[in-house]
Amino acid sequence: MNNKGLLIILSGPSGAGKDTILGRLFLKNDKIIKSISATTRKKRDKEIEGKDYHFISKDEFNDKILDGDMLEYACYCENYYGTSKSEVEKLRNDGYDVILKIEVEGAKQVMNKCGDALSIFIVPPSIKILKERLFNRGTESEKELELRLDRAREEINCAVNYDYIVVNDDQDKCAEDIYEIICAEKMRSYRIKNIINEVLKEC
Amino acid sequence: MNNKGLLIILSGPSGAGKDTILGRLFLKNDKIIKSISATTRKKRDKEIEGKDYHFISKDEFNDKILDGDMLEYACYCENYYGTSKSEVEKLRNDGYDVILKIEVEGAKQVMNKCGDALSIFIVPPSIKILKERLFNRGTESEKELELRLDRAREEINCAVNYDYIVVNDDQDKCAEDIYEIICAEKMRSYRIKNIINEVLKEC
Repeated sequence: MNNKGLLIILSGPSGAGKDTILGRLFLKNDKIIKSISATTRKKRDKEIEGKDYHFISKDEFNDKILDGDMLEYACYCENYYGTSKSEVEKLRNDGYDVILKIEVEGAKQVMNKCGDALSIFIVPPSIKILKERLFNRGTESEKELELRLDRAREEINCAVNYDYIVVNDDQDKCAEDIYEIICAEKMRSYRIKNIINEVLKEC
Repeated sequence: MNNKGLLIILSGPSGAGKDTILGRLFLKNDKIIKSISATTRKKRDKEIEGKDYHFISKDEFNDKILDGDMLEYACYCENYYGTSKSEVEKLRNDGYDVILKIEVEGAKQVMNKCGDALSIFIVPPSIKILKERLFNRGTESEKELELRLDRAREEINCAVNYDYIVVNDDQDKCAEDIYEIICAEKMRSYRIKNIINEVLKEC
């Protein structure tokens, strides 16, 4: 039987609750893990190599791009951030379901490069509730909040390009929903067609 | 939000445990129901119209075929059996998930006619176990048993044409797996894309 883990793209606007949901998912099953991005940014004091990021040089990053090993990458403030395909594949071959928490542009790159990736978009129940959640964080000015909401609207419009849309109305329910999707996807016939040979094997 | 129920095609060889699994599914959720076939066969004494079958005349059956209202049909021993599309759609529009327990040829017809049907194939863990199950029923001669196993092998080879393959190793687990698939499928973005308008609606 095919025990290769899934590659799971998880997106959603800021304030949709992705991090909380991820925390609950990891508690449900220790074979579900988060992909660690590679970056050319300098390591900060409290950061740990291989836990927060894989800190690599610009040359190494470039080599990975040229080798076609970057499932997705982007540049922010002159630093590169990306996801190594060989790293993800190694984990999947070890039976881990690897989650990429990623924004919509990166997700698009991964969908194009990895045909068997499973994509899930988390939406808030409404823009009104998202606004309340962001407001309650109290970390942004009104202008920043409006910019963030504009961005959220744009992102939510991309949700239809994902395989699944999950509403985060209740965090437990949302984590449960995503776990259900992961379990169901493992029974997709194209993922487990080899099982037919096993069943039909005469002993 | 779209509350239209799913159309679920359920197939699997004789002895795979479809009926037991269905019984458990219906207990889990009373919005999951079985489609009732139409037939031109005479009603038997203990049969109930609308429960066992919809008993209709050959003319009525023919009209349904001509109207394109038969999702699938077949003829056995000069009697027609089939599934009315309008009947299924009415139930789905009332929010029911409708299960068609059907063999592989009928399933193929439904898949072709109903693009949003969800298809699940139940396999036994192995041909050896299937043989034991059928043998333990004690209802067939050795020759009949071999014929049934040959048919099972043919059917199992069709499993890859279904969306999902579920192994019936343990009946509770198998019913749980199918229930998970049904719940997950309700979050497929193409089924619920209207939700995006709801989320984005400014109030």
